[in-house]
Amino acid sequence: MPSAIPPVDVQAMESARARQAVLTKPAGSLGRLEDLSIRLAGMTGRLDPPLGDAVVFTLAADHGVAAEGVSAYPAEVTPQMVLNFLRGGAAINVLAREVGARVVVADMGVDADLPADPGLRAVKIRRGTGNIALGPAMTVDEASRAIAAGRELVRTELEAGLDVVLTGDMGIANTTASAAIVCAFTGLSPAVVVGRGTGVDDEGLMRKRDAVGRALAVNAAAIGAGALETLAAVGGLEIAGLVGVILEAASHRKPVIVDGFISGAAALTATAMEPAVTGYLIASHRSQELGHGAVLERLGLAPLLDLDLRLGEGTGAALALPLVRASVRLLNDMATFGEAGVSERAIMVPTTE
Amino acid sequence: MPSAIPPVDVQAMESARARQAVLTKPAGSLGRLEDLSIRLAGMTGRLDPPLGDAVVFTLAADHGVAAEGVSAYPAEVTPQMVLNFLRGGAAINVLAREVGARVVVADMGVDADLPADPGLRAVKIRRGTGNIALGPAMTVDEASRAIAAGRELVRTELEAGLDVVLTGDMGIANTTASAAIVCAFTGLSPAVVVGRGTGVDDEGLMRKRDAVGRALAVNAAAIGAGALETLAAVGGLEIAGLVGVILEAASHRKPVIVDGFISGAAALTATAMEPAVTGYLIASHRSQELGHGAVLERLGLAPLLDLDLRLGEGTGAALALPLVRASVRLLNDMATFGEAGVSERAIMVPTTE
Repeated sequence: MPSAIPPVDVQAMESARARQAVLTKPAGSLGRLEDLSIRLAGMTGRLDPPLGDAVVFTLAADHGVAAEGVSAYPAEVTPQMVLNFLRGGAAINVLAREVGARVVVADMGVDADLPADPGLRAVKIRRGTGNIALGPAMTVDEASRAIAAGRELVRTELEAGLDVVLTGDMGIANTTASAAIVCAFTGLSPAVVVGRGTGVDDEGLMRKRDAVGRALAVNAAAIGAGALETLAAVGGLEIAGLVGVILEAASHRKPVIVDGFISGAAALTATAMEPAVTGYLIASHRSQELGHGAVLERLGLAPLLDLDLRLGEGTGAALALPLVRASVRLLNDMATFGEAGVSERAIMVPTTE
Repeated sequence: MPSAIPPVDVQAMESARARQAVLTKPAGSLGRLEDLSIRLAGMTGRLDPPLGDAVVFTLAADHGVAAEGVSAYPAEVTPQMVLNFLRGGAAINVLAREVGARVVVADMGVDADLPADPGLRAVKIRRGTGNIALGPAMTVDEASRAIAAGRELVRTELEAGLDVVLTGDMGIANTTASAAIVCAFTGLSPAVVVGRGTGVDDEGLMRKRDAVGRALAVNAAAIGAGALETLAAVGGLEIAGLVGVILEAASHRKPVIVDGFISGAAALTATAMEPAVTGYLIASHRSQELGHGAVLERLGLAPLLDLDLRLGEGTGAALALPLVRASVRLLNDMATFGEAGVSERAIMVPTTE
C-alpha cells in the first residue's frame, strides 16, 4: 500500500532559518548551504537530522531500445557492470567507501542470468524492456511491480538503518528511455532532450533522437493516460524501481539525493505521481547530458555540483553527500554571536544579497 | 631562503591520464574529477598521493582601511573571530572536523593583544596595516617578513605531517585590500572588482570603490615597482602570510586548495612572484564576491564548487577537500576494463565530448 507523502515541516524550517541568522558569520555568507540546511530541517522535522546511514540504491536493468544502436556500449555491459558493483570495483563503490555510504545493488530487469550473490537484490521483474521505438517498454502491471520492488528495497534498508537515500542506475541505453520520459512529461522535443549518453557519435545521436521520436509517437495513447502509463510505455525497469525508491523514501521523510539524468527522469515521474515528493529531493549535480537542465528546471531544483559528470550509478549523489552533511553540521555546531561574544553588526546593517 | 618551485611532473600526469582511459567507465564520464586526478599526479609526482594530513591555514590580520567605512562589521570582529576559531566555534572549525582537516590559526597582524593560546601561532608583524587609501599598507620589509612567517607556518606543519594545504583568512576590511591587489595585478577597474564583502549596502560599496581607487592612485609608484612592492603597498598582513604559505607549499610539491577572494588575491600575488606556483593551485569555489571571477580567470583555474559562498576562513577550501580526495581514490581504486571483464567498447567508438 503506497504511503502518502507528508508535507515538509514549515516550523522546523523557520527554526533553522532563525538559527542561521545568529551564527557567527555574515548573514547569507554560507550561501546555498544555508538553504540546504533549512530544507533538510523541513524534510526531517529536525534541525540536526542524522545523516550517517546513507544508502545508494544502484538499480540495474536492460532496455530493448538498445537494439536501435543508441548506445556506445553493447547491452552485455549491463550485467558486466553489475558484477563489477558486486566486486566493489566500480566508481560508485569507490565513492561510497570514500564518503561513508553503503551501496544496494538491485537487478530490476537485467537481460542475463546473474549469479546468486549476497550483495545482489535479485528482484528482476522481466529480462529487459521491450523496444520503446516499436511499442511499450513494459505493461502497466510490470511498472507497478517494479515500483513496489523499489519501495521494498527502501523498507528493508530502513530496518538496517537509513537516514538519507541516494539514487543510482546502470543500464545500457537508459539515457534513451529517460529522454523519452523527460519529453513525455515536459513536452520538449527530442532535439533538446536527447544527448550523447555514454558518448555516442553524431550518427548514434541521430539514431537515438529518431528512436525517441518514434517511441513518443507509437506510445502516444499511453503517454496521454497518466504518469504510471507513461513510465510503463517509454520507461525502464530500473527507472520504475527508482520511482518506488523515491516515493518510499519521501513517505518516511528521508531526504533523497538525486543523481543525474536517469535518476532525474525517475524523480520527474515520482513528482508527477505525488507532487509533494519534490520537498524531499536534493539535486546532487548538473549532468553533462543534454536534457538534464530541463529536468532540473522542471523539478525546480538547483544542483549542488557541476563537474561535467555523466556516469550515473549514483556517483554524483555520492559526491554531493559531504556537502549535505556539512550543511547540517554548520547549522548545529557553529557558535552563535551571543555564545562567541562576536559583534553581530555595528557600522551598518548588511544588505541581504 | 625561498625555495624554487619545481615544475609539475609531466610523466606522472601521462600515467594518470592513461589509467583514466582504462577504468570501468565511459571515457571522460567523471568529467572534471578526471582532470583533477591528473593534475594532482603532476603536482605530487604520484598517482596515489597521500591526502590525509590536510591543514587549513587561517591567517588573521587587521586593515587600516577599515577606517574608511568599507565593511559591514567593526574591526573588533577580527580578534573576536580569532577567539572563536580557538574555541572551535567558527564555520571553518566545524567544516575541518567534518572533512578531516586541522586548522592552524595565526595572528599575522591583528590590531589587538590576543591571549597566549596553544592553538594560536602568534606571529604578529605589526598591529594592522596602514590605511591604503592614504598610503602604503606596510613597508616592503614587513611584507617580506609576513611572507617568511607564512612559509615558516608550513614548514612547522610539514614536520607534523602535511599532505595538502588549504588557505583561509580572517580580517575585517580584507576584501578591500584584496580588491586593490586584484586591480593592481589585472589592470581592471574597482568598478568591476570591488564587491560587497561581508555585505555592505550601496553607500558602503561606493565608499569601498572610492577607497580602492584612492589606494591605487596614492600607491601607484609602488604598484609599478613589482609584486612584493604591490603587496606591501595595498595588501594585508594575512594576505602576505598566505603568499608565503602558497609559495612554501608549492616548493614542497604540496597541492594548495585555494579558498575564495582573499586567498585568490594571495594566489595572484604568489604567481606574480613565481609563475610555476600555478601548477600547484586548485580553485575550491567561485565566491559570490564580485571580483572573484577575474581572479580565477587570471589564474586560469576553474573552481570545483559554486555555492554562493562569501565567508572566507578557508570554508570553501574545506568543502572542496572531499572532491579532491575522491578524485584520487577513483583513479586508484576503480577496476580497469581488463580486471573487471567489462567490454570496453563494441558497437561504435565513443566520441570524446
